[in-house]
Amino acid sequence: MIQIFLFDEEKNCHKDLTLDQIRISLPNPDHLLWVNLANATPQETQYVLGDLFNFHPLTIEDCLSVGYQPPKIDDFGSYLFLIVHALHPDHRLDTLETFELNLYLGENFVVTCYAEESMPPVERVIQRLARDQRVYLNGSDFLCHAIIDALVDDYMPLVDQLDDELDDLEDAVLQKPHPITLQRILSIKHSLMTLRRILSPQREIINRLTRDEFPMVDKQSQIYFRDIYDHLVRIQDLTETLRDIATSALDIYLNSTSLRLNEVMKALTIVSTIFLPLSFVAGVYGMNFHFMPELTHPWGYPLVWVVFALIAGGMVLFFKKRGWF
Amino acid sequence: MIQIFLFDEEKNCHKDLTLDQIRISLPNPDHLLWVNLANATPQETQYVLGDLFNFHPLTIEDCLSVGYQPPKIDDFGSYLFLIVHALHPDHRLDTLETFELNLYLGENFVVTCYAEESMPPVERVIQRLARDQRVYLNGSDFLCHAIIDALVDDYMPLVDQLDDELDDLEDAVLQKPHPITLQRILSIKHSLMTLRRILSPQREIINRLTRDEFPMVDKQSQIYFRDIYDHLVRIQDLTETLRDIATSALDIYLNSTSLRLNEVMKALTIVSTIFLPLSFVAGVYGMNFHFMPELTHPWGYPLVWVVFALIAGGMVLFFKKRGWF
Amino acid sequence: MIQIFLFDEEKNCHKDLTLDQIRISLPNPDHLLWVNLANATPQETQYVLGDLFNFHPLTIEDCLSVGYQPPKIDDFGSYLFLIVHALHPDHRLDTLETFELNLYLGENFVVTCYAEESMPPVERVIQRLARDQRVYLNGSDFLCHAIIDALVDDYMPLVDQLDDELDDLEDAVLQKPHPITLQRILSIKHSLMTLRRILSPQREIINRLTRDEFPMVDKQSQIYFRDIYDHLVRIQDLTETLRDIATSALDIYLNSTSLRLNEVMKALTIVSTIFLPLSFVAGVYGMNFHFMPELTHPWGYPLVWVVFALIAGGMVLFFKKRGWF
Amino acid sequence: MIQIFLFDEEKNCHKDLTLDQIRISLPNPDHLLWVNLANATPQETQYVLGDLFNFHPLTIEDCLSVGYQPPKIDDFGSYLFLIVHALHPDHRLDTLETFELNLYLGENFVVTCYAEESMPPVERVIQRLARDQRVYLNGSDFLCHAIIDALVDDYMPLVDQLDDELDDLEDAVLQKPHPITLQRILSIKHSLMTLRRILSPQREIINRLTRDEFPMVDKQSQIYFRDIYDHLVRIQDLTETLRDIATSALDIYLNSTSLRLNEVMKALTIVSTIFLPLSFVAGVYGMNFHFMPELTHPWGYPLVWVVFALIAGGMVLFFKKRGWF
Amino acid sequence: MIQIFLFDEEKNCHKDLTLDQIRISLPNPDHLLWVNLANATPQETQYVLGDLFNFHPLTIEDCLSVGYQPPKIDDFGSYLFLIVHALHPDHRLDTLETFELNLYLGENFVVTCYAEESMPPVERVIQRLARDQRVYLNGSDFLCHAIIDALVDDYMPLVDQLDDELDDLEDAVLQKPHPITLQRILSIKHSLMTLRRILSPQREIINRLTRDEFPMVDKQSQIYFRDIYDHLVRIQDLTETLRDIATSALDIYLNSTSLRLNEVMKALTIVSTIFLPLSFVAGVYGMNFHFMPELTHPWGYPLVWVVFALIAGGMVLFFKKRGWF
Repeated sequence: MIQIFLFDEEKNCHKDLTLDQIRISLPNPDHLLWVNLANATPQETQYVLGDLFNFHPLTIEDCLSVGYQPPKIDDFGSYLFLIVHALHPDHRLDTLETFELNLYLGENFVVTCYAEESMPPVERVIQRLARDQRVYLNGSDFLCHAIIDALVDDYMPLVDQLDDELDDLEDAVLQKPHPITLQRILSIKHSLMTLRRILSPQREIINRLTRDEFPMVDKQSQIYFRDIYDHLVRIQDLTETLRDIATSALDIYLNSTSLRLNEVMKALTIVSTIFLPLSFVAGVYGMNFHFMPELTHPWGYPLVWVVFALIAGGMVLFFKKRGWF
Repeated sequence: MIQIFLFDEEKNCHKDLTLDQIRISLPNPDHLLWVNLANATPQETQYVLGDLFNFHPLTIEDCLSVGYQPPKIDDFGSYLFLIVHALHPDHRLDTLETFELNLYLGENFVVTCYAEESMPPVERVIQRLARDQRVYLNGSDFLCHAIIDALVDDYMPLVDQLDDELDDLEDAVLQKPHPITLQRILSIKHSLMTLRRILSPQREIINRLTRDEFPMVDKQSQIYFRDIYDHLVRIQDLTETLRDIATSALDIYLNSTSLRLNEVMKALTIVSTIFLPLSFVAGVYGMNFHFMPELTHPWGYPLVWVVFALIAGGMVLFFKKRGWF
Repeated sequence: MIQIFLFDEEKNCHKDLTLDQIRISLPNPDHLLWVNLANATPQETQYVLGDLFNFHPLTIEDCLSVGYQPPKIDDFGSYLFLIVHALHPDHRLDTLETFELNLYLGENFVVTCYAEESMPPVERVIQRLARDQRVYLNGSDFLCHAIIDALVDDYMPLVDQLDDELDDLEDAVLQKPHPITLQRILSIKHSLMTLRRILSPQREIINRLTRDEFPMVDKQSQIYFRDIYDHLVRIQDLTETLRDIATSALDIYLNSTSLRLNEVMKALTIVSTIFLPLSFVAGVYGMNFHFMPELTHPWGYPLVWVVFALIAGGMVLFFKKRGWF
Repeated sequence: MIQIFLFDEEKNCHKDLTLDQIRISLPNPDHLLWVNLANATPQETQYVLGDLFNFHPLTIEDCLSVGYQPPKIDDFGSYLFLIVHALHPDHRLDTLETFELNLYLGENFVVTCYAEESMPPVERVIQRLARDQRVYLNGSDFLCHAIIDALVDDYMPLVDQLDDELDDLEDAVLQKPHPITLQRILSIKHSLMTLRRILSPQREIINRLTRDEFPMVDKQSQIYFRDIYDHLVRIQDLTETLRDIATSALDIYLNSTSLRLNEVMKALTIVSTIFLPLSFVAGVYGMNFHFMPELTHPWGYPLVWVVFALIAGGMVLFFKKRGWF
Repeated sequence: MIQIFLFDEEKNCHKDLTLDQIRISLPNPDHLLWVNLANATPQETQYVLGDLFNFHPLTIEDCLSVGYQPPKIDDFGSYLFLIVHALHPDHRLDTLETFELNLYLGENFVVTCYAEESMPPVERVIQRLARDQRVYLNGSDFLCHAIIDALVDDYMPLVDQLDDELDDLEDAVLQKPHPITLQRILSIKHSLMTLRRILSPQREIINRLTRDEFPMVDKQSQIYFRDIYDHLVRIQDLTETLRDIATSALDIYLNSTSLRLNEVMKALTIVSTIFLPLSFVAGVYGMNFHFMPELTHPWGYPLVWVVFALIAGGMVLFFKKRGWF
């Protein structure tokens, strides 16, 4: 699907243009053009990016290729090419998935391109066009900011969800450690690492946009990109904190396993060391020697019970002293 | 609550001004103005920061937003915007909490803004205004320094408390390791990591204030900010040392668990390896075979006790040799 | 084997030239020459590199020497000398092996040199010469890019294979941990570390080729080298992710070992703590004392079974309460 | 105690001056003045540093404050302020303690200030004044170098002591691991970390003194400061090596614990698996069934002993095959 | 021993000069002088370095001092002072030892100085002087390169030996883990860390010699120093790989210990859980109650054997299901 939004000198918004009408607007510096290629066919993509906008073939290859591509920013003089990552709207906490958004930023145009059917942050910006003029009144760099801002806004709820999940897991670890808890902690930790790997280059890209490096990003927009940058720093900070919590939950889990082993061993040892000597004594008086004076003694049997009690009591005292109860 | 302090050319202090009287003082470079927004309503905040001072909307958003924001410094040409973290006055050692203080620093004004009812470091500076003229005689940068200094001063007692707590925990680990000790060590370690994450960017902010980067901070004040910087370096140093101690306490704890397991196992092994053979011998002579010459031998029973003694003695000697006692 | 490809002013391709015909073409800036030394004898190598091209003796030494050499780039003014690593075509996942490709890049020539019989990426570029004019129409730097690009393209399938293998291993770890699984995880992790050690300097080399550092790489080709660079960044990213997965698989493996030990210990403890007391009671009534009133009591034997049941039932309840079942 | 050393134009040394005589010498660039404040009262310190030398109040605060302060260097234009750490003369290896030495370096003066009664490195330099003219002939920067050099010289013997101690501990770990050994290794490791934390900023301070950064340190003295720098690098290198040894001693210790557990478990298992089956067989023939043909068989009893021998022998063979002996 | 080699304008080599003849050659820029102080007395060293060459006293101190000194390079304007490390010719793999070589490099002289009787790399260069004119025809910087090259050449065989040793150890770990294997792995790892600590600054020194930093090293020699640099990078790369192998061998070792414990525990558990219930049943029918109907039953004894078989068989099935065999 190809969506075209043209804002003319009088800041009127034209939708539903044909692709060829773009050709006329493109050289006009007072127009602002946003072309959104959502799950377009390779032919359409090639036509718009290659023939209409004349972008570099390598960037078109990037737009068309499937498979993971890390966030990046490339400067081609008259336009910038960005790859940024949006969160999958139905992301699961244990296997974090992301969408790639390809974005071209020129003096008077923004082109967005993605392979998925639906990209919520972009759709939210499209809806915002109708009710908030600021989005297109401030030029292509502000429009670009609005898209990336919407995209970054999705990260915060994810971090909050991860936080809640970890809180639950931490409680679970303390109350009743279970291998499934372990596996969930490990997969949360894994998601946090994936998140960090996406956030880190993304932060670097935004950081470059806040500097005077690119002529199409003016001073005013730099401040807004810095806001996104601060946002990303905050998310990274929280991600680090969550990684700490995950690590310490793991530590508690592993320790609880060995504590439990200790407890089991103690129970075994206490029972064994009490009953093995007792059984031995009982075994002695089960022997069939003809001459065993204790057996015929009238107090023999009661005295054996006294011996049993002494042995058991001595052992219990010994364990008490050792602090095993 | 909004508090306004105006110091005029003759260095007289005016409190209880209305907000509109600020408008007149603001353009006067010889006046020094401090506006403190403590738990103000969003309307008040918007009015003072946006309409009176005309600060950038993004910074006002930062002031109004709830939720964690990492320390930062932003330069807007005619004023600086800082976020710094103060310690929660009732902070607990195991879950460190911080307050965020938003601070604007201009040539002749300081604006502080926070969401909490009470922010002790700011209140201490307000009390100090009455008895120490230096705070406002040296311009807005020195006033800003006084506020941040008061804020940083709160960290040191916390580090001392953490130190004491860790000392106690270290002793507890050596004397009687308990899962609760483990949990407390882990939470102290967690607090230390949180502390480090707050201190590190804060130190970087102060470091930037000690350089010639910002025109509203003069040479004289840079030296005072360097003092805060040294203070923060010292706190970070101590934090690192405490983290080492926490880690080594953890090591001792985990080792003591496995040592204890060893001890329990030894007791079990000693008892089992002594009594299992003894019980076997007793069992042999409890068999009911018709032809068992030992049973009818007059020395049979006493000799079995000799065998018992030999087995037990041999085992004990074996364990002694192995160093298991 | 020495292969010579000469592209003259009219962009015609001459193969099967003699070495001496090179001498004439070399000074002609409109010619493009590619000499490929595949498993050539030391004499041939010395003759071509030393006598014909007059390269620095140290680089010839590098070409002739066997044994591992890390990727590097050296600037000799009129030409660049590169060492890059191609994957062994029959590489095994657990012991990653690489080929070294030595490459000279001059204004109008490329010389490639390797010790192996067959170097698939180079052979693919030779085949591409016939059907894709772009490879030699854009000068020596583009030809060099085509060779390195072909070489880097081989890494991606390897990373995919490693990914699949790790997926299998992760499942194996969760279902039935076995020492062989451990060994395979460790060797995959090892391969990933080897891969990282090759990729990291290689990325750095390509990064330097994307900058204005070398005069023989023009602006247009820099963009293509940046494409290779992005490719390598992506491979490194995936490698890091795989390393994380390998590490977490290892964690699960090690934990499953200790969990299994726990389970075994519990079984032992449950059986022992139930049957040791029972056996003791049975032993008591196997004693041969003459006076044991219980033995002659008509309900004695049934009551002992009640005692057995009480002990066993009590133990089971105790274990249930402790959560050992 | 305040010690004053004045070296006049003729390089005569005057001791025992009054504080007011300093006032006259101070502006004379040909004089060299060393004032040493050893455990002086706050009033004296304030008078000398504040009133006489007019140093910045923050540095005086640093001199007067108790509590740990990390090494640092501050440039106040006409003088440098340094904090360096000397070793406590009675330092113990397990809890490393340091003294702080505050030092002012100006064009023609050095002021040293410390809170302790006795600071051996400074005292050694005072004694050296009498017999080695070089110390004061080369200006204030060389005198400063002499003091810091004496201070750094104390570190080497400490590192040697730590080395010897670790050698002993390593032997102890291999021969007879004991919890006390563990604790000593951990505290040595702790001392090494403390040492590293002091050395690292101190090295950085000296490094800055070897560069052209400060006008009061001339080229000639820079070479001497570089010597101290090399000295510190060497000590840091050795400290790192010792940390490695401590870590590997810890590894051996922890492994020896688990090896020992293994050994204990094997003994238990061998005894149990031999005697439990034997006891069972004996128990069988201790049963009181009326019809048990084996019991009346004349070879019954000897054959049971054969069964005992076969079971025991079979078990021993099984263990031998498993390599458990 | 002092060896003097003088190469005059006609490139003739003069050995066996007296020290005083050096004085005449030294100012002659067309002469090349190499003085080698091998295990010279302190007086000789002081005379040659101090009186003849007039080197800085601190460097002479470095030459005379015993004890470890890290590699370094110091620039004294008219000459460079280097400390580099050669391997001890009889180095053992588990305790790596190095020799220190002190080297002065001036425009027309090289002075080498070491405390050991014999320094093989230097001796090899002396022997090479006779048969390879290149060594002294290219000036002092090339001679210096030849010495350091010979010294670095000794590292490669060591790395190969470490590789072989680690291969053996890895096999030993997989086949029959033994505490001695552990100790050898740890000491190899230790040697690799020592090696890394020597190689890293040495590489940095050579790196500085490949840049335009020092006037006495010309462009031509820089290329040769870059060759040594590449050599060191390769050795460091291999060292890192070996460290990985050592770490993974350690992991396998530690895991095999816990696997073995698991195996021992299983054997114990299987035997105990089979025979404890059996013994209990046998014990029951060994009781002496007067009224035990089973005992008089003609099928009693055979049925007990059926019970024994059922219990044992049930346990074995249970273990099979759990996968314990």
